[in-house]
Amino acid sequence: MRDFLPAEKTRREHVLGVIRGVYRAHGFDEIETPVMEDASRLHAGLGGDNEKLAFGVLKRGLSREDLQSAEQALDLADLGLRFDLTVPLARFYASHRAELPTVFRAIQIAPVWRAERPQKGRYRQFMQCDIDIMGEAGPLAEVELLAATLDALDALGLSDARIRINDRRLLVGMLRGFGFAEDEHDSVLITIDKLDKIQAAGVVAELRERGATAAAVNQLENFLRRPQTMEYVAFGERQIRRGLPGGADDRVVAELAAIGEAVDAARLAAGAEPLPDGASLLEFDPFLVRGMGYYTGPIFEVAHPSVGYSLGGGGRYDGMIGRFLGQDVPAAGFSLGFERLVDLVALREGEAQDAVAIVHDADAAPASLAVLKASLLAQGARVRLARRTKNTKPLLDQLAAEGFTRFAFASAETTPETLELRPLGAS
Amino acid sequence: MRDFLPAEKTRREHVLGVIRGVYRAHGFDEIETPVMEDASRLHAGLGGDNEKLAFGVLKRGLSREDLQSAEQALDLADLGLRFDLTVPLARFYASHRAELPTVFRAIQIAPVWRAERPQKGRYRQFMQCDIDIMGEAGPLAEVELLAATLDALDALGLSDARIRINDRRLLVGMLRGFGFAEDEHDSVLITIDKLDKIQAAGVVAELRERGATAAAVNQLENFLRRPQTMEYVAFGERQIRRGLPGGADDRVVAELAAIGEAVDAARLAAGAEPLPDGASLLEFDPFLVRGMGYYTGPIFEVAHPSVGYSLGGGGRYDGMIGRFLGQDVPAAGFSLGFERLVDLVALREGEAQDAVAIVHDADAAPASLAVLKASLLAQGARVRLARRTKNTKPLLDQLAAEGFTRFAFASAETTPETLELRPLGAS
Repeated sequence: MRDFLPAEKTRREHVLGVIRGVYRAHGFDEIETPVMEDASRLHAGLGGDNEKLAFGVLKRGLSREDLQSAEQALDLADLGLRFDLTVPLARFYASHRAELPTVFRAIQIAPVWRAERPQKGRYRQFMQCDIDIMGEAGPLAEVELLAATLDALDALGLSDARIRINDRRLLVGMLRGFGFAEDEHDSVLITIDKLDKIQAAGVVAELRERGATAAAVNQLENFLRRPQTMEYVAFGERQIRRGLPGGADDRVVAELAAIGEAVDAARLAAGAEPLPDGASLLEFDPFLVRGMGYYTGPIFEVAHPSVGYSLGGGGRYDGMIGRFLGQDVPAAGFSLGFERLVDLVALREGEAQDAVAIVHDADAAPASLAVLKASLLAQGARVRLARRTKNTKPLLDQLAAEGFTRFAFASAETTPETLELRPLGAS
Repeated sequence: MRDFLPAEKTRREHVLGVIRGVYRAHGFDEIETPVMEDASRLHAGLGGDNEKLAFGVLKRGLSREDLQSAEQALDLADLGLRFDLTVPLARFYASHRAELPTVFRAIQIAPVWRAERPQKGRYRQFMQCDIDIMGEAGPLAEVELLAATLDALDALGLSDARIRINDRRLLVGMLRGFGFAEDEHDSVLITIDKLDKIQAAGVVAELRERGATAAAVNQLENFLRRPQTMEYVAFGERQIRRGLPGGADDRVVAELAAIGEAVDAARLAAGAEPLPDGASLLEFDPFLVRGMGYYTGPIFEVAHPSVGYSLGGGGRYDGMIGRFLGQDVPAAGFSLGFERLVDLVALREGEAQDAVAIVHDADAAPASLAVLKASLLAQGARVRLARRTKNTKPLLDQLAAEGFTRFAFASAETTPETLELRPLGAS
């Protein structure tokens, strides 16, 4: 867990504000849920491995005096901190469905907590920026999610983002085609999900070690060895079929192709430059798995050429809301990896409002300083009072580093009329 | 703990944005700390009664399998959720002092948690909006806090706010003058703090019941009976002295008067209308106590004529940072009661961006809808897709209620060129 000092906090709020603004423009509505949920809900099996990382919360603080037994502690710990925003959303939707539009587009921008062992790049408290669409069964949901996400990245100056896309149904079809038994699928997918890290040989070795159906592993091995020399440029049904073994579901392939076509068309309609050679923003990746077991249809990840990791991902999870509501509701979502993103975004120069420092003598009266400050505030400036130091240079340098662009010295006699503003160079 | 639906969440974010903007303009810098602090720090005696309401957090979730004893539960519960933003700020300042300006003006806008019994108007999770100034010993800190707060309330349309002010040193002087022993002061102040609720007779009765020094209680009783007919209009040393028994500390009285003078002057310099009869925004209240024991100097509360409760308060707490840093640092802060405030603020009409609904036929292709949406987004509108229902009136009414101001029907053939926008009346 981290403290955020002013410069970093300002940058974080700026990035969150841009994301919020774009998602709102795309017709999504922001909601908020409490940071705590009932422990039973957090441990209902929808959070995968993350469930194990949920912090427990005690109804009240424990003291040696009032805690007599382990049993009693368990009774007190009936709450937990959310480990993602998807479980709370499903609970929220089940609670408030009658008050929400038929197709509900939700924004959630909020922290989550995981009791991770401290290590570089892993935080116990971190922000998630999720959008979700509930009640839309067709690919229009995926199109809106991806178009909004790409627009948000654009607005943050990350316009080279690309989308890797796959579909859980194609993955399952492929496993069936190779001959894996249905009850092996989850475990095989967990191994395939490591393809980027351990490569084809590692995946095959791990599957053999785990005792997966031998003939199926052989088929997968052969498929992984297929020549991959062709250029994937245009995105569409042909490209998807080329990435798959035979027998892929026509309807699913057509749906994925339609998503890509719509996202590319929206980009052009918004005035973006066409990509060279008619290339698409989307790339079909037949081995994209996405960790969470609740996905049921298209899944996607967003990558940026400047970094080797994904900037976020999501997919369709049609079965999940039903777990809370007792009635199936189609749903799809996308989660931006805010903590990764924020480091890539430079706070643009010139966006800051006019910022003025009043460097004042120690004997200037509070009323006179308050008046000087108010007169500049009334002109729309950001104003900081700073008591004059013996040597003013370090003070002025510090103020310039903090983004102040002008300053004035103020003595006990200075009035708004005699205040002399000078530029504050970042010297 | 509450869920916030879109309309309420939008209003809350709007109010937070206004407050953040005004505080930033006044030269304050936003910081953020983790929601959890070490339990030992939360229970260090600085949080008054609120300490008892801290939720304990377990390093990991508890299960019947892995919890063997009460002792073990206590070992796991070494974290807690913050119950205010002052204790975390003191810890933050002690950790990062070398990286912060000599006089540090902090904004904290963040949730806190208290394990209250559920009751009307009391929440277990609620937002606080705090500003604090560390490193400024003089009344300039109080002036900046109050001027910024009044500006924020102004920006929210609550320009009739007034400030009740007192000073802990005057309170202590008064108790000494009446003849209360030093070790009685804390408990006597707790009773006096109830004056608004139980009136003078209730305060006197409670003090007698508690066995407070009898002669001192008699003196207090006489003072509470003094005629209160005069009009307090102008604020200044004279008004303060009239509100107190004799023997008040001249320096403290002068300092309070200077704070009032400066706050009023700043308001006029910012272009506000003078109040009738030269009245001040400040009113001296000799019995204002503010609950927390850590206050050491001026204390204040902000009231608004539209409601019977305070909208926030604060004061000087010079001893507190030293508890964490081992070295005294002067400090003063102000906390806005966000949850009370947000209900008073009407989301102003006309502030929303152009909002357009595309009411589309079920058979319109995702790509064509994505293009229609992108073309309106490129013109700066907020855009919502809505699938056409058999009877469109309820759908259009719903969209109007959600703030959409225009709409267009879209069939499978509609293009950006043929899209016909119509006004959406709030019929």
